[in-house]
Amino acid sequence: MTTDNKATNIQWHDGTVSRADRQRLLRQRGVVLWFTGLSGAGKSTVACLVEQMLLDRGRLAYRLDGDNVRHGLNKNLGFTAADRQENIRRVGEVARLFADAGVVVLASFVSPYRADRDAVRALLPPGDFAEVYVKASLAAAERRDPKGLYKKARSGEIKHFTGIDDPYEPPERAEIVLDTEQLSPADAAARVLEHLERGGYLAA
Amino acid sequence: MTTDNKATNIQWHDGTVSRADRQRLLRQRGVVLWFTGLSGAGKSTVACLVEQMLLDRGRLAYRLDGDNVRHGLNKNLGFTAADRQENIRRVGEVARLFADAGVVVLASFVSPYRADRDAVRALLPPGDFAEVYVKASLAAAERRDPKGLYKKARSGEIKHFTGIDDPYEPPERAEIVLDTEQLSPADAAARVLEHLERGGYLAA
Repeated sequence: MTTDNKATNIQWHDGTVSRADRQRLLRQRGVVLWFTGLSGAGKSTVACLVEQMLLDRGRLAYRLDGDNVRHGLNKNLGFTAADRQENIRRVGEVARLFADAGVVVLASFVSPYRADRDAVRALLPPGDFAEVYVKASLAAAERRDPKGLYKKARSGEIKHFTGIDDPYEPPERAEIVLDTEQLSPADAAARVLEHLERGGYLAA
Repeated sequence: MTTDNKATNIQWHDGTVSRADRQRLLRQRGVVLWFTGLSGAGKSTVACLVEQMLLDRGRLAYRLDGDNVRHGLNKNLGFTAADRQENIRRVGEVARLFADAGVVVLASFVSPYRADRDAVRALLPPGDFAEVYVKASLAAAERRDPKGLYKKARSGEIKHFTGIDDPYEPPERAEIVLDTEQLSPADAAARVLEHLERGGYLAA
């Protein structure tokens, strides 16, 4: 898989409808909240709660999820470092389109490599991206093991499993850190909502 | 590029917010309008007009455009048959996500191969996809040549150009046919709006 730019003879069509028009319609600003952390840290749980809280406020959110996206867009990718990189790159590009549509994107991916997450950050204008580090120790995540994946990784049934035989590089400048060994899921979700409110994302 | 399903150990997270919830919020139904036709047939022009008409009615649309997507999601793809297939496959998957978000997707792609368009149709539940054939003869499209691409293709500067040295397979069962040698852009866009209204897509 190359990431060279092969496309040539390309022109943009801007149309007459702008992102600002869509944001006024939706009364919100498009943004990508990028939830990263170990499997079992609570990324999807918190993202689902945030999604519900936004709906309750009449705001449009959409979740992009590692598991879901791998059934469709990225079903031709595996779990090698190169495939993980392309996986995150494609999701980042899709998240950018959703943010441009005016949607609050809740992207929930282990996304273990700092360089890949930083590449997504670099895709988006400043303020359109917030890294949400859903933090739990490996011991806690493995104790929860909601999908039974750690057990399979320990037995060798799954290879390249983050935290076991593949690395996780913690964020160094996450906009939001949620320690799910300290915070309840509801309290963690409330912190994300505060970030959105304080940043003016729920008005346009 | 393989399209084998490499992803294993995957589970879905459905959350508590459904597509129906999003559609109620937006007062519309998610749908993919897939504009296909030769370069210069008028796909982007009509899609931009539809986008504006929907905004004027307080409805959320988003355009996916061959040119735009190739700057981002699909920048690592060229114009061979295999790359065109993967290009359309990825866009189809992204369109599916937007429709699931409740958005009216205006996908505007030459998408010359019937099999690739049918693959996108097959991705989506019946009623979530409408093929919009933006029809113009090669002579008319080449006469317009808004981007100067036919000239470059004729001179050999561009290879694999649809209509010149690459085939275009016209739709056999398009939901909407817009003959842009007969219809003005505004009349063509009005027909698309009628399709949406008649199909109940602008209510939820």
